[in-house]
Amino acid sequence: MADTARRGLGRPRAKGPSTSGLTTEQDILVAAARLFCEVGYGSASTHAIAREAGISQASLYHWFAGKHEVLLRLLLDTVRPSVSYASILRRRPGPADVRLWALCAYDVRLLLSGTDNTGSLYVLPELGDERFAEFHVERTKLFRVYRSLVAEVLGAARSEKVPAAEVHATASLVFGLVESVILRRRTEGDMDPDAVAQEIADGALRMLRVGEKRLAAARAANLSAG
Amino acid sequence: MADTARRGLGRPRAKGPSTSGLTTEQDILVAAARLFCEVGYGSASTHAIAREAGISQASLYHWFAGKHEVLLRLLLDTVRPSVSYASILRRRPGPADVRLWALCAYDVRLLLSGTDNTGSLYVLPELGDERFAEFHVERTKLFRVYRSLVAEVLGAARSEKVPAAEVHATASLVFGLVESVILRRRTEGDMDPDAVAQEIADGALRMLRVGEKRLAAARAANLSAG
Repeated sequence: MADTARRGLGRPRAKGPSTSGLTTEQDILVAAARLFCEVGYGSASTHAIAREAGISQASLYHWFAGKHEVLLRLLLDTVRPSVSYASILRRRPGPADVRLWALCAYDVRLLLSGTDNTGSLYVLPELGDERFAEFHVERTKLFRVYRSLVAEVLGAARSEKVPAAEVHATASLVFGLVESVILRRRTEGDMDPDAVAQEIADGALRMLRVGEKRLAAARAANLSAG
Repeated sequence: MADTARRGLGRPRAKGPSTSGLTTEQDILVAAARLFCEVGYGSASTHAIAREAGISQASLYHWFAGKHEVLLRLLLDTVRPSVSYASILRRRPGPADVRLWALCAYDVRLLLSGTDNTGSLYVLPELGDERFAEFHVERTKLFRVYRSLVAEVLGAARSEKVPAAEVHATASLVFGLVESVILRRRTEGDMDPDAVAQEIADGALRMLRVGEKRLAAARAANLSAG
């Protein structure tokens, strides 16, 4: 599409320069996140998003093919940074428990970042649509890194190979614990990202029966690495 | 309201007897749960709910004051049984870890019951409305029982009093782990309620640093009580 090719060329805003200090694209994402979380995805029109972003509806369509594409970008922003970090961690030497602790803490901080709880959009019925396949692919990639780290941690503590089903179930438990901050944020409101990240990462390693001495070492290694 | 007083009198269905074997009220709840989860709360009209339930819109208004009241009932059904069970557990003698294991397992099974994942409605923006205050009250009641059991489990393992902030943070971790099945159900689809209930209850006790021997005893006590 010609329209797609034109995106990213920095077309001027329809209503003058942004007052937020962000790019127009970011203004749209911030406005959409707020509306999707406050009035719901179904009830937020592209018209309302454009108005909230301080641009015209035509400008919005210059940046995004439609509301679904805005949602897809918001969803991808909740997983892609963790996927990138996970792929670095996978190649990094050192004990698997130290790296799993790091991934849990990073992921929790990401899910608690931003003004709006965009992770809560994971439960939207619309996500069954194939237009959101890319998000599911990225989230699966992330889960697989968790699973491989969990396999290493469990394996290090035993002499025999840990059954794949047990690894998968345990990884699902850890992944669920990390993403639990999405529902908690809805109820608890303001949460201290650093404190909660540490509690969740500690909890994950304890679920994997990592002893307190090793856990303290994993925590210290990560906190000193900053 | 006169309408409220008339509810529950078993007014006949507008479109003949139910074919589901359920009461009309239950037919409405099942239909609404499906629509809320499949097309979203905002997009589901009372007209569509009534049609799905096989009744007229007027009949729906005989049972419920509006769509919000249907949603409130669905939400209450995801917590009230656990609140009742929790109040029994609180008074029951025996070690706190055995009772906390029981509560986690029961709550997970409840959240995984029913055809639709009604727990996913927890993130609806509409829940900020005061008409849903009753749900928040019940959920808080449930959290408090978790917190008091967590305090007992942590306290039993130490000689000094556990700080309230630590108890609260740990209880939030456990409560989050239990409710994590809501997001997992959205992604994983069919989950084995008994297997997952046991994994989560085990994970909760491990996060509280309950040793493997005590944990095995807590699990055995509950599984034999069946």
